[in-house]
Parts: sequence; structure tokens; C-alpha cells
Amino acid sequence: MKYKISQNVIKRLPRYLRYLDMLGKEGVLKVSSGELGRRMGLTASQIRQDLNCFGGFGQQGYGYNVAQLRDGVAAALGLDKRLKAVIVGIGNLGRALALNFRFEECGAELVAAFDVDPAKVGTQIGHTAVYHVSELESFIRENSVDVAVLTLPRERADEAAASAAAGGVAGIWNFTGDDLSETAPEVFVENVHLSDSMLTLGYYLRSDGGRGET
Amino acid sequence: MKYKISQNVIKRLPRYLRYLDMLGKEGVLKVSSGELGRRMGLTASQIRQDLNCFGGFGQQGYGYNVAQLRDGVAAALGLDKRLKAVIVGIGNLGRALALNFRFEECGAELVAAFDVDPAKVGTQIGHTAVYHVSELESFIRENSVDVAVLTLPRERADEAAASAAAGGVAGIWNFTGDDLSETAPEVFVENVHLSDSMLTLGYYLRSDGGRGET
Repeated sequence: MKYKISQNVIKRLPRYLRYLDMLGKEGVLKVSSGELGRRMGLTASQIRQDLNCFGGFGQQGYGYNVAQLRDGVAAALGLDKRLKAVIVGIGNLGRALALNFRFEECGAELVAAFDVDPAKVGTQIGHTAVYHVSELESFIRENSVDVAVLTLPRERADEAAASAAAGGVAGIWNFTGDDLSETAPEVFVENVHLSDSMLTLGYYLRSDGGRGET
Repeated sequence: MKYKISQNVIKRLPRYLRYLDMLGKEGVLKVSSGELGRRMGLTASQIRQDLNCFGGFGQQGYGYNVAQLRDGVAAALGLDKRLKAVIVGIGNLGRALALNFRFEECGAELVAAFDVDPAKVGTQIGHTAVYHVSELESFIRENSVDVAVLTLPRERADEAAASAAAGGVAGIWNFTGDDLSETAPEVFVENVHLSDSMLTLGYYLRSDGGRGET
């Protein structure tokens, strides 16, 4: 399915998915735009506007069918197509993601991990085999890997991104803090800046209006 | 210093800080709103509007003084006041944050870590001592801790959040995926949903327009 959706709506789709999953688990079958908005901290009209962008599953006065809307959001996110991912850098963060991150729930599958440490190469993290980084490019090419998750030190980020791009990944999930736009200009880079999140928290704690939720 | 700043500008302040730090490291002394906008993917008028919110350090035709603007953004974020933080849950993610996250650069200081595992309690992670979670509430109270970083399993999130709130933290940096709004309604909760980031990446890779940067 294809939709024309604005950047801002796209950014909110994962949140819709989370809240709809939560409602589903609570056994809620129908939800009004007002109730969904209250939970998500958005106005009812904002909700209606967002959901209209990709088909509009609501009926005035009857609310949205939770399961149907959830599937619509999942389809809009493209979760029906599974992406192959590899993790590069099996330090603490890489290990945490390999063992605990629910790739399947994000429509992805973790197929391999890479590191430079001889003590790690040849072992397994959970069910995932660890290869040497020198094999990254050929592994990506031979296995049609879509996404490289970079969890290695910043100093090695450029090199790993270049190998991943040469192998043919379409996207990089970048935890290194390094700006990869020049290394891999043809690859889509999603940067995770945990410091932004901590700085935002700090801002609210220091300012007077500081209680609430993000 | 106190400013009245909109939520959207606040959300962008950490990014301004990152880009200004980058410019500083490159030795750039002055930057125009156009050039800063090009780097950050914002329009020049957006930049001017944002920065006007907290004083406006630019001069038409001369650009912004990078160091001065950087300090202004840091002050707006309140980085001059240091926050005390503890990490609760020393699994892989907790360990990764304890060892690698630059708390100081976010105006915070990591003062202790907590876990339930007897093998971890009494040890140190880097320079940080690990205590038993049963001591969390009293430690927070006695040491005036501002922020609890929750990196423990979702099933234990509620309990830890309740202890942290009872001890008197003002904020929780929440990696558990659990919605803590009912457990700690008086505490500011900053949720980190890594799955949102991965879902966004997946969306762009699956849709046709998928190349770019976030």
C-alpha cells in the first residue's frame, strides 16, 4: 500500500501503533478520536486529520475499530515487508540491542552481528552469529541486508558506514553520534541521539513548569 | 536565566547545541542563519524565529557568534545547573549508559547504580558504585538525586519508578517501554522508545522516497 503522508504524520505513526497495541491488549474494540487524543496528548481534530491521511478508518459518532486501525497504521509503516538487519559493534549497547530489542515488532529481523574483537568473532549473541567486521561488506551483499545498526565507537563509525554502504544497505540506524551524511550520502540514516532526550529532560526539570510527560 | 519558549523550540535546543558544538570544533567563529539552517535542514527564517525566542544573538548581515550562541543555548537548556542521576538496572543497556553515555555533556552527573543481582551489588561500573535496589529510595533522599535512569526489565519498571518517586526524584529517564504515568504522576517522565526510531527508518526504506537523513 502506498500513501502520501507528511513527515510529521510519519513521525507520529509509531506512537499510534504503540497506543493502539496498548488498547488492543486492554481488550478495547472501538475508540473515539477524543479518547485516543486524550491518551496520546493530541486533540481529537489532530487525530482525525492524521488518520485521514492514510484512508481514515473512523466513522463519525462510532469511533475507530481498534484492530482495523492498528493494521492500517502497521500497513502504512510497511510492517508487512520484513527488513534484514545486522548489528555492527558488540559492545554493551550492541549486546543490549541484540538480546533485548524486539526487531520483529519493528518489521525487521536480526541476521548477523559484527565486531573486531577476536574473542567475540565466531561466538553467538543469543541466536545471532558474530562475524569479523572485515566480512561486513560481502555479507551484506550476499544476504541482501537492508539495515546496518551501528553501535561501535564513534572513531570507527565512518569506516563501518562506508563498508555497509558499499555492500548495499538502504539504511543505517546510527547510535555512534557521528554525522555520516558525507560517508554514506546515498543511504538513509536514522540518528539516535540519546543526549537530546536527556537534555530535554534536564530542561524541564530545571524550568519551573517542569512536571508532565513527553 | 528564564525564557518563555515553545515546546517545539525546546525540542530543537539539543540539536542547536550539537550543531554549534560541531561548528566550534571546526573553528568556525560566525555563522549565518542560512548556513546553520542548511546544515540542520531548517529554513533561515525558522532559525531566526527560534533563536529570537531566547534573546536573539544574531545581527542582520553579520550572522551569529558561534561561541556566544552556543553558550546562550546551553544556558537556555539550564546546563549551568548540574543534575544528579542514578541508573537502575545494570544489564547491558544500563552498563552501556554507565560506561559510555556522556552525562556531564548533558549537565548531569552519574552518582550511583542499582541492581538486584548479588553478583553486581558492591562492585563498581567504571567509577560508579552499584547498590541493591532496596536502597534506592533512601539513597535518592539522602543524596538529593534529581533523575532516575530506568534500564531494568519492563516488569520491574513500576516498582523502581515508585521507589524513585518516593525518594524524591524530579525526573525519570525511562528506557523500560512501560508507561509510568500512573505510577509516578508527580514526576517528569522522558520516555525513550527506540522502536519508534527503528519504525521510522523502516518506513522510509520501504516507501519510494526513501533516501535522505533525519
